[in-house]
Amino acid sequence: MSLSQYLSSRIKSVKKIMARRHLDAVIFSDINNIRYLTGFTGSEGTLLVGQGESVLLVDGRYTLQAAGEVQGAAVSEYKNIFAGIEKAAKKLGARKLGFEAGATTVEAHQRLTGELKKTVLIPLSSELKLLRARKDKYEIATMKKAALIASGAMAEIIARIRPGWTELEAARQFELEARSRGADGIAFETIVASGENGALPHARPSNRKIEKGDFVVIDFGVRYRGYCSDETCTLAFGELTVAKKNAYRATLRAHDEAIAGIREGVAAASVDRLVRDVLGKKYSRYFVHSTGHGVGLEVHEAPRLALQSQEILSAGMIVTVEPGIYCPGRWGIRIEDTVLVKKNGCEAITKLDKKLTVIE
Amino acid sequence: MSLSQYLSSRIKSVKKIMARRHLDAVIFSDINNIRYLTGFTGSEGTLLVGQGESVLLVDGRYTLQAAGEVQGAAVSEYKNIFAGIEKAAKKLGARKLGFEAGATTVEAHQRLTGELKKTVLIPLSSELKLLRARKDKYEIATMKKAALIASGAMAEIIARIRPGWTELEAARQFELEARSRGADGIAFETIVASGENGALPHARPSNRKIEKGDFVVIDFGVRYRGYCSDETCTLAFGELTVAKKNAYRATLRAHDEAIAGIREGVAAASVDRLVRDVLGKKYSRYFVHSTGHGVGLEVHEAPRLALQSQEILSAGMIVTVEPGIYCPGRWGIRIEDTVLVKKNGCEAITKLDKKLTVIE
Repeated sequence: MSLSQYLSSRIKSVKKIMARRHLDAVIFSDINNIRYLTGFTGSEGTLLVGQGESVLLVDGRYTLQAAGEVQGAAVSEYKNIFAGIEKAAKKLGARKLGFEAGATTVEAHQRLTGELKKTVLIPLSSELKLLRARKDKYEIATMKKAALIASGAMAEIIARIRPGWTELEAARQFELEARSRGADGIAFETIVASGENGALPHARPSNRKIEKGDFVVIDFGVRYRGYCSDETCTLAFGELTVAKKNAYRATLRAHDEAIAGIREGVAAASVDRLVRDVLGKKYSRYFVHSTGHGVGLEVHEAPRLALQSQEILSAGMIVTVEPGIYCPGRWGIRIEDTVLVKKNGCEAITKLDKKLTVIE
Repeated sequence: MSLSQYLSSRIKSVKKIMARRHLDAVIFSDINNIRYLTGFTGSEGTLLVGQGESVLLVDGRYTLQAAGEVQGAAVSEYKNIFAGIEKAAKKLGARKLGFEAGATTVEAHQRLTGELKKTVLIPLSSELKLLRARKDKYEIATMKKAALIASGAMAEIIARIRPGWTELEAARQFELEARSRGADGIAFETIVASGENGALPHARPSNRKIEKGDFVVIDFGVRYRGYCSDETCTLAFGELTVAKKNAYRATLRAHDEAIAGIREGVAAASVDRLVRDVLGKKYSRYFVHSTGHGVGLEVHEAPRLALQSQEILSAGMIVTVEPGIYCPGRWGIRIEDTVLVKKNGCEAITKLDKKLTVIE
């Protein structure tokens, strides 16, 4: 199947929602949804998916680019976006329009309501939440390639990294290596958090030098053809205390058991619950975030693997599993893989072995 | 003045809005506004600014980090954000709360309305639009440093670049050079658009090799301590046709005259009008975007320098001036500086000379 066939099947899933909600059209302003549905890679635009035709509205910066990229939608240049939407709605004969309640601001909604006098605007929330969650074959292939580039680049850094490197140095070396292996860029600021910095789950790399006795949390991802990868390894430098070894072992067991428990039909919340159970009383209070999240065009997208999550995992979803233990002021551990949910299990698309790696 | 004094004066400007609108508190969810008001550099949080105290709500990932970074607000960890906001509003004794209409989704607003039963939610739009537009001395100093790093790094690339380099190579070399000069990263994907690619204002760098006769548009910015820089130069490779030379001259004249026209009290729209007037009938239809935008914690922020803009420039605003001519399928030119608006004029904080540079 070509990309244009995938795009047309994605548009069809929007049309199913339209049929269910008796809508003439849906307005999309989330740029990732627009890329997903049309192939447009610009930073701004508005898409109206109609019963028959669809229209992508762009400003003058993107007219040429959109004409070259977009498939399955007409491209129209606007001067004023609200007037542009009104004109497109008229062209599509749309009077009852859905919109992304989770991506439309109160201000934009007020202005739309003011402009679109002859139409009814219907907020869509849960209907669109999982629009991009189940990846198609095109996306799975692209995401596997992204993950492979990132894992390969990090394997190279692990072979070279030594005590005395700064966190920033390690982050920069990874990014260079990933670029040289074909990544378009990084998916998020690479985290290299050594020693006490590891206790901050979202630490920024600093000039701290890695020392013997440190755990170093490295959370890294690349962007490849729009898609993100996400993986974390925690390296040990020199001999570890027994307490640290035990904590690593507990994190790895939580990671492994969570992955073993993932398959179609499992509640996302139950994976988070499983991780907390395996971490047990001793460690779970130091696990300060949720177990995972979907990955795709965005590095964080639906579904969430968290206690409050209502979602059920289905085949084709690609999610992270990333338990961690953070000991304030002292050290941190996180072990993360990204997995593709299947009917009877799951497949890790990130490729580094998570057994404890000790660097002398 | 220390950062904490600047933060406290920024919070005061919010309190003025509260007094004017008779609000007990304002809820912020725009992460850049939160950084601006508290110093918090995480990726997610919610800030309630009250009459007396303020409260920053973060999830478990950021509790430690926020405690170390935030000044002038209490930090509180939440499990459920809507319940967290309700608790914080109660703590602040706030019954009438403003919120960012331009940064709150319809969905979040619905959930907030459901949760905050005893409170009234007031949308704030125009009141907050220019919250960060006038930079204080701390910000001006930081942004000058960001611009200086970027201009210096690009000067180095201009000294080395030759026909035969690919666009991607030039982009990567700039990024390395900027990092080595102290940039924390890039502010946006560097644009290096040669030959016909230059006709796309937001082209992505490709493997196209730069040839003699090309214009190459290079739009580049770095991030330094959270703040962005933004500058564009267009280089000529080898001898240019007379038509291209004339187009460059027209763009430069539009750029220079716009900058000469900027000072406190001038309407943002009139700067855009001036650029179109200078470009004249011959070129202005090839100028497919607006003249400029504010820069700060975001690379695009208020005010806009566009025909539809309602804003008046004031001293302390930092805005781009970036006229361009895009000849579809053939070539493009853009010349951009970022300037600090002053009482009687403006000062360019980006530093490359924009006279035509010819590279042999």
